[in-house]
Amino acid sequence: MEVVKATESVRVLVKAARSEGKKVGFVPTMGALHVGHIFLIEAAVKECDFVVVSIFVNPTQFGEGEDFEKYPRPLKADLDICRKGGVDVVFLPTPEQMYPTENITWVNVEKLTETLCGQSRPGHFRGVATVCAKLFNIVAPDIAFFGAKDAQQAVVIKRMVADLNMPVDIVVCPTVREPSGLAVSSRNKYLSEEQKKDATSIYRSLQKCEEMIKAGTKDTGIIITEMQKILNQVPSIEIEYVSIVDAESLQIIDHIIGEVLAAVSVRIGQARLIDNIPVDSDRE
Amino acid sequence: MEVVKATESVRVLVKAARSEGKKVGFVPTMGALHVGHIFLIEAAVKECDFVVVSIFVNPTQFGEGEDFEKYPRPLKADLDICRKGGVDVVFLPTPEQMYPTENITWVNVEKLTETLCGQSRPGHFRGVATVCAKLFNIVAPDIAFFGAKDAQQAVVIKRMVADLNMPVDIVVCPTVREPSGLAVSSRNKYLSEEQKKDATSIYRSLQKCEEMIKAGTKDTGIIITEMQKILNQVPSIEIEYVSIVDAESLQIIDHIIGEVLAAVSVRIGQARLIDNIPVDSDRE
Repeated sequence: MEVVKATESVRVLVKAARSEGKKVGFVPTMGALHVGHIFLIEAAVKECDFVVVSIFVNPTQFGEGEDFEKYPRPLKADLDICRKGGVDVVFLPTPEQMYPTENITWVNVEKLTETLCGQSRPGHFRGVATVCAKLFNIVAPDIAFFGAKDAQQAVVIKRMVADLNMPVDIVVCPTVREPSGLAVSSRNKYLSEEQKKDATSIYRSLQKCEEMIKAGTKDTGIIITEMQKILNQVPSIEIEYVSIVDAESLQIIDHIIGEVLAAVSVRIGQARLIDNIPVDSDRE
Repeated sequence: MEVVKATESVRVLVKAARSEGKKVGFVPTMGALHVGHIFLIEAAVKECDFVVVSIFVNPTQFGEGEDFEKYPRPLKADLDICRKGGVDVVFLPTPEQMYPTENITWVNVEKLTETLCGQSRPGHFRGVATVCAKLFNIVAPDIAFFGAKDAQQAVVIKRMVADLNMPVDIVVCPTVREPSGLAVSSRNKYLSEEQKKDATSIYRSLQKCEEMIKAGTKDTGIIITEMQKILNQVPSIEIEYVSIVDAESLQIIDHIIGEVLAAVSVRIGQARLIDNIPVDSDRE
């Protein structure tokens, strides 16, 4: 496994692999790798002949007062995971390499970024789309792999790729959960054991939503009230949003129809946690 | 010469050329090709082994009330020019192919687009940057060629390529002028013979600027006043802007220092005409 810091080195390695006819897979990450990432790496290794993982805590997707500084950076453990996972290249750029001058070029995906996390984290998806555009241009993968836990991110990146004709396929892998139902996340490291138990109510609220939709409830207001009740039973939880949106447009809906996405964001102690569940209301 | 309309066809042809080790050159145009474009095609043919020209009047870079509808589209003459020029592929997409759904992803280059044409054409450079990002992703050229007459466009595209790590080199070719000094432009077709004569004062104003800088004048206000005098002698000319900016940042400067760009935009009859002259104030 090669660990490289320079963009030119990544380009050279990928070019060599492609000249051998290899299909190139890419897993962009911010490090602090967990079983969700391992799942993405496994999917990439299975689907492709040459796998690049980037580890870059991207400053432009963090807002003022967010956790950029304290975001976990366990580099040695991350590299071990990549090595065991069969990754060919780990790309480890510095912020100075990714943003050598003031960045004045931004990729903005409109509309899709107006709801859910877009409301509470202004500029977040602009930073995500821009750094993904940069990474795709550096790595030039055939397929890039994203996790479904960041559902809005996946929808935004897919739309960016389509709108800008980027020559890459986007594969979205299902959310990985702990036995308790808690979605695995690098930010779970901010939680005490007690808080982790509290956080299981997030998934329980999403399951409640799924049950109600399957049982025929159409009014999203009624469903959201039930979800909020579950979350409000836990004193440590501060709700940021509980939303039900159209799965494609991410617009808030009043009435359940077709494929929808129920999404929750809460704060517990130092952590901001998000989770979601897709529900196809037309299927039993 | 192949003339193709589908993005997939361009990708296949370029991929085949690249697999033969050919260097791929790209000249993005809106058609209505003139000697300026011929110069770009010549440069591309000289520098590269495989040359793609796109002809696409891009709707997203025209504002309300601008000349999108009446922009000249002499397709047969354009294809003749490409054929004679030794172009390998002409890419002729329709607006529906380039924008199959509502476009919600935009590439914004900030700061550089705040002065000059950015002020009078809000949204113009957002459309230019976005369509160039799309075309670069479809054509995947090694080098793309732009004309210096659209100086701000060239600076914006160069910065977009750098900021987004796009794997393409940008070459900017000098402005081509008629013997009268008038910069060649597709929009000169909107001018009568009389108006063409009137329009020569644009270049005369730019030459005056260059002379004054070479003679040691440092105060841009004094220079701009002299340039305006030349333009105001022609009753048919309505000045949009007469500006002197730093050649790299495109910020308005009060005092001549280093490399500067003098730029003029005027309206004559139905036409909006722009021209510019780069001046290195440190060189005799």
